[in-house]
Amino acid sequence: MKIAVLPGDGIGPEIIAEAVKVLKALALPLEMETAPVGGAAYEAAGHPLPEATLRLAQQADAVLFGAVGDWKYDTLPRPLRPEQAILGLRQALGLFANFRPAICYPQLTHASSLKPELVAGLDILIIRELTGDIYFGQPRGRRRAPDGPFAGAEEAFDTMRYSRPEIERIARVAFEAARQRRRKVTSVDKANVLETSQLWKDVVAEVHRDYPDVELEHMYVDNAAMQLVKAPKKFDVLVTGNMFGDILSDEAAMLTGSIGMLPSASLNERGQGLYEPSHGSAPDIAGKGVANPLATILSAAMMLRFSLKQPEAAARIEAAVQTVLADGLRTADIASDGCTVVGTAAMGDAVVRAL
Amino acid sequence: MKIAVLPGDGIGPEIIAEAVKVLKALALPLEMETAPVGGAAYEAAGHPLPEATLRLAQQADAVLFGAVGDWKYDTLPRPLRPEQAILGLRQALGLFANFRPAICYPQLTHASSLKPELVAGLDILIIRELTGDIYFGQPRGRRRAPDGPFAGAEEAFDTMRYSRPEIERIARVAFEAARQRRRKVTSVDKANVLETSQLWKDVVAEVHRDYPDVELEHMYVDNAAMQLVKAPKKFDVLVTGNMFGDILSDEAAMLTGSIGMLPSASLNERGQGLYEPSHGSAPDIAGKGVANPLATILSAAMMLRFSLKQPEAAARIEAAVQTVLADGLRTADIASDGCTVVGTAAMGDAVVRAL
Ligand SMILES: CC(C)[C@H](C(=O)O)[C@@H](O)C(=O)O
Ligand SMILES: CC(C)[C@H](C(=O)O)[C@@H](O)C(=O)O
Repeated sequence: MKIAVLPGDGIGPEIIAEAVKVLKALALPLEMETAPVGGAAYEAAGHPLPEATLRLAQQADAVLFGAVGDWKYDTLPRPLRPEQAILGLRQALGLFANFRPAICYPQLTHASSLKPELVAGLDILIIRELTGDIYFGQPRGRRRAPDGPFAGAEEAFDTMRYSRPEIERIARVAFEAARQRRRKVTSVDKANVLETSQLWKDVVAEVHRDYPDVELEHMYVDNAAMQLVKAPKKFDVLVTGNMFGDILSDEAAMLTGSIGMLPSASLNERGQGLYEPSHGSAPDIAGKGVANPLATILSAAMMLRFSLKQPEAAARIEAAVQTVLADGLRTADIASDGCTVVGTAAMGDAVVRAL
Repeated sequence: MKIAVLPGDGIGPEIIAEAVKVLKALALPLEMETAPVGGAAYEAAGHPLPEATLRLAQQADAVLFGAVGDWKYDTLPRPLRPEQAILGLRQALGLFANFRPAICYPQLTHASSLKPELVAGLDILIIRELTGDIYFGQPRGRRRAPDGPFAGAEEAFDTMRYSRPEIERIARVAFEAARQRRRKVTSVDKANVLETSQLWKDVVAEVHRDYPDVELEHMYVDNAAMQLVKAPKKFDVLVTGNMFGDILSDEAAMLTGSIGMLPSASLNERGQGLYEPSHGSAPDIAGKGVANPLATILSAAMMLRFSLKQPEAAARIEAAVQTVLADGLRTADIASDGCTVVGTAAMGDAVVRAL
């Protein structure tokens, strides 16, 4: 089983080091190979996603990804910016199904912005389509406006697109996932305004006929943004397009108060996947040894379960993280009264001990 | 001064009746004319925005709008659905600047999902561009995918577009508004992915040169969705496009806990405006006399200030609403221990008495 390890920028290398430490401690036949990505790759090889890194990712069974991005690359032309690496990987590997759990860990309920009774026990799964929509839709660019009230003026444009098979496959992923959970899917769109959303809604409803045991609800994206704040526990699986999913998955992650703990998986049709923490590269705390490695460690657990078919090993890691939390260990981002604050490496070591 | 009064559907007629009551009590030379809109207009005239209603709105100095929409119209073809009326009015009147205050009323801090310390005293102004973006961008429709990995499959598509003059004018509105407030503008985009957003960001930065006394910050939309939950008080004026504004303004409104109290204004270049509550038509409680009319009454105050240049009258209404709240009167949606719960009409009467 081959894993491409892409640490990236900011706190990426630190948190990846701890996840690798935990994986090694499992003594499974895992082959891990590291390559640069993002700003680090731009510095090393002049491109955020060098040919060799992409090839490594394509040949691996799974990619373990840290984080990319730093203010210092903001002035680079867009194709050379760190984020292009993650977009390039998603597209090249066909990683269309993004799983973003929004879980409120019992020990971290206090860390949420929301009142404890609204988030205690929260467990939502956001499934975001990741290779279509306005993220990749052609045509896009700048031009003189060809028509409309500002014809002749400089304008920029992008194209939102979804095809029936793209919607079908992500809808199936959502309904299948719901069967393993509380059997409810909320499909989020803006069908009162967008043609793309109307097709989305129609196709999701059609696919639903194959899943009569799962409840389907349609919700407009503006309402979903509200309901997540008002009553997040009403959701089970939330499925949506790439753009709305970007916004709603971050909103949901933040309201759990547990964002430093949340893993994510992005899968393709062959079960190959990219696994990364839900949080970003946090350049402000990079190199200080204080970043929370648990989201990355839990991403490694997701990788073992989804792409490497090692559910027992995944469960061992998850149980070890629970033990460490129960023992009162916390990194600074999730610290509270009476807990023991530890650094990145000490947290990784503690998980290894608890395995 | 002529006002087009468009009550609409659901609780629309009830809440508009109270706003009209308050306006009449001011004894100003206001000419008010009522016309059907939304589902009510579809029933009466076969179209959600009949010719006569549109003409009335165009000839008036301001439009006082209730709410539109009801589940029972969900099966109508899109062009006949109630929401088309509001989109049609925005486009026909050129209402490009949408003002959506997100204020946490001191008496309602407890009603927020967020912890009181995060929302107490919250006062954000969201300025949403309202006539451009993917809401109105052509081309759009359904077709066989002309290219891409799903070429030949049925697909739907929409076009996100913004031209330089459209961005310039809304940026100016935002900077001017910030000068009346805490002098900070957060411009929200997705420039790491979208061409449209990159132009948005560039043009907002250019316009900023004329407002050196105002601080400008750029933020990605996913991060904005998070920061609104995490630390909403860090915002002053938030300016963004139509689609992102739809989502973020609703998220922000909900997290104040005061959504039943929040007015909105949509203005065109001539200062003509449409004024409506931030909340929807709430068909579930329609006709019961329990809806909160305060957001609509406060929208009427905004109308007096912005379009009718009657700032004293506006201030009188706002002060009256404060008095009524201070007296402990509440509609059911904002009720709390020790308050007197009243119905829609009683609340309107109380505001009139407090004028
Ligand atoms: C970095 C950016 C391109 C990316 C996205 O928008 O998809 C990020 O926000 C994410 O959610 O993984
Ligand atoms: C009804 C709908 C078309 C509308 C919008 O999306 O603009 C509404 O959500 C709003 O925010 O006023």
